[in-house]
Amino acid sequence: MKFWSNITKTLTPYVPGEQLNESGIIKLNTNENPFPPSPKVIEGIKKCLGPSLKKYPDPQSSELRNNIADFYDIEKKNIFIGNGSDEVLAHIFMAFFKDKKLYFPNITYSFYPVYCGLYEITSKVIPLNEKFEIEKKQYLDLDGNIIFPNPNAPTGIGLELEVIEEILISNPDNLVVVDEAYIDFGGRTAVELIGKYKNLLIVQTFSKSRSLAGMRIGFAIGDTELIEGLIRVKDSFNSYPLDRLAQAAGKAGIEDKNYFDYTRKEIIKNREWLVSQLKIRGIEALPSMANFIFVKLDNAENTYKELKSRKILVRYFKNPLIDNYLRISIGTMKEMEILIKNIDEIMEV
Amino acid sequence: MKFWSNITKTLTPYVPGEQLNESGIIKLNTNENPFPPSPKVIEGIKKCLGPSLKKYPDPQSSELRNNIADFYDIEKKNIFIGNGSDEVLAHIFMAFFKDKKLYFPNITYSFYPVYCGLYEITSKVIPLNEKFEIEKKQYLDLDGNIIFPNPNAPTGIGLELEVIEEILISNPDNLVVVDEAYIDFGGRTAVELIGKYKNLLIVQTFSKSRSLAGMRIGFAIGDTELIEGLIRVKDSFNSYPLDRLAQAAGKAGIEDKNYFDYTRKEIIKNREWLVSQLKIRGIEALPSMANFIFVKLDNAENTYKELKSRKILVRYFKNPLIDNYLRISIGTMKEMEILIKNIDEIMEV
Repeated sequence: MKFWSNITKTLTPYVPGEQLNESGIIKLNTNENPFPPSPKVIEGIKKCLGPSLKKYPDPQSSELRNNIADFYDIEKKNIFIGNGSDEVLAHIFMAFFKDKKLYFPNITYSFYPVYCGLYEITSKVIPLNEKFEIEKKQYLDLDGNIIFPNPNAPTGIGLELEVIEEILISNPDNLVVVDEAYIDFGGRTAVELIGKYKNLLIVQTFSKSRSLAGMRIGFAIGDTELIEGLIRVKDSFNSYPLDRLAQAAGKAGIEDKNYFDYTRKEIIKNREWLVSQLKIRGIEALPSMANFIFVKLDNAENTYKELKSRKILVRYFKNPLIDNYLRISIGTMKEMEILIKNIDEIMEV
Repeated sequence: MKFWSNITKTLTPYVPGEQLNESGIIKLNTNENPFPPSPKVIEGIKKCLGPSLKKYPDPQSSELRNNIADFYDIEKKNIFIGNGSDEVLAHIFMAFFKDKKLYFPNITYSFYPVYCGLYEITSKVIPLNEKFEIEKKQYLDLDGNIIFPNPNAPTGIGLELEVIEEILISNPDNLVVVDEAYIDFGGRTAVELIGKYKNLLIVQTFSKSRSLAGMRIGFAIGDTELIEGLIRVKDSFNSYPLDRLAQAAGKAGIEDKNYFDYTRKEIIKNREWLVSQLKIRGIEALPSMANFIFVKLDNAENTYKELKSRKILVRYFKNPLIDNYLRISIGTMKEMEILIKNIDEIMEV
């Protein structure tokens, strides 16, 4: 490690869910969408597939930003694009969080503390309450910036928009980042608050509700001054974060509203079915507004291993606070039925 | 700028060459390849284009690394992949350059000082000599890390491998990063020195000699300890930097050696033709080993503007050290002929 910077030596990198390539695996461990991307996405990519790949992409992803602006009825200048929402988050941590304390829930997206390590940001975690909820009163009048997902991960529990608004109002000098990776499965986005609160920044992704985890498209929505700060950091890091085909995929993906609405409703339906089937069997899930559920089990680690041996992959976190839970992504109805069948077999043993 | 980190306020971002979308433009300003990517690249992408886009890509880009390893007859563990060589460079600056002085030429890739700004790295520039060359003796026995492109940009002048080796030997405690973005147009890569020098790290890209600027694929080659440092930083920033189609494009691109050899030889041929035509007209170019030439003109800024008004885009740098030069990317033979014709017309006026 002779040539490593001191900071490199201290890093504890994020560990993504396993990406097994074996065939026949039912993959319910990284919250991917069980539906393929919209056929229009494939068409959009095909149109772009040719000699133009020799040329640099648009560094500003302008057309994609236009389409996102249309979708949300906001302005292009309020949108920032990145190579997946993880890159967007990384730039947010650098652009806005370096000089103050940062607050986030103790059980949340496990990349947040990693970014704090990378950018030497002091963080303070706020415990969830006994129901695994983010408790509003703990986020009022703080002395630092704030980030949380809505719905939270891996719990799946969502916050009312009114709660987010109260947090924004009581923290006028702190930036509040709402990570809406899972918002499209039953939550209510805070986009309508943009324009009203300059301290609000929203992060979204094409990886979940738009079935495009493989194309790495994330974005942020906020006041122009925040977007300009992000562009500065991005243009000091990598001018061209999205390749031509990713931009084409995103553009087409956000245009196909019918497909988006159909697939997310199917996922919500499958989620409710899975939750009810588990309940019948005495297994409780936290109330989820995401495309996954967080399920309490006495023997979570064993169940994870049992399911894995049966080629069903779910996510188990070796964190003492939640090591009696499994996070299960919502798949197709057929996958959900196979899951229940296997759980029955495991429970019978 | 209320919510900006202090560092964000100080940044002076990189300014990429103009990406005009007007039709009929002859674009010789960002060193893109005039040839389209190999037909096998398009095939490779098409094979990957389908439902699998809903799933995350391989975070390690394993197959792409395998193919690069095969191409160079090295090992996969010596290869790091990033979202364009700009991202690879950014991670290098963070992973290795933060704690020591960094040396680079005063005329070079203008992103280096930007990264220093982003990561608060102290830099010291070493002037080129009067022939615009990197002078070996100024890089021996230094007290800091070193980065330079070979061939250098925007001069196009290359270094002998023996010179690089002397620099490596005389700087055993400093990391020496050789940025080989333009190596395939007549230079000699330092890859054969990997394994011999643990302080050598090479950066390459698919944007130039592989006609894939639009797909954002860069890589580094070095000792495993260096690669591990880069992976740590990458996995603390964004686990999945390359989307599925970019990985497929890179895999197919590096396999098609015939196409690679054909196109780079054509570009070298066109470069030599352009240089000789300019010489006939009394215009001198620095001796280039890249896919661009750096041309001395009394009225560089005016010529840049004149050419632009004629829909020919070249690169002019508003830097007093080189503001009597233009950087011209090498295009197709037809583009080079049109360029010469227009230069003749401008000179006649």
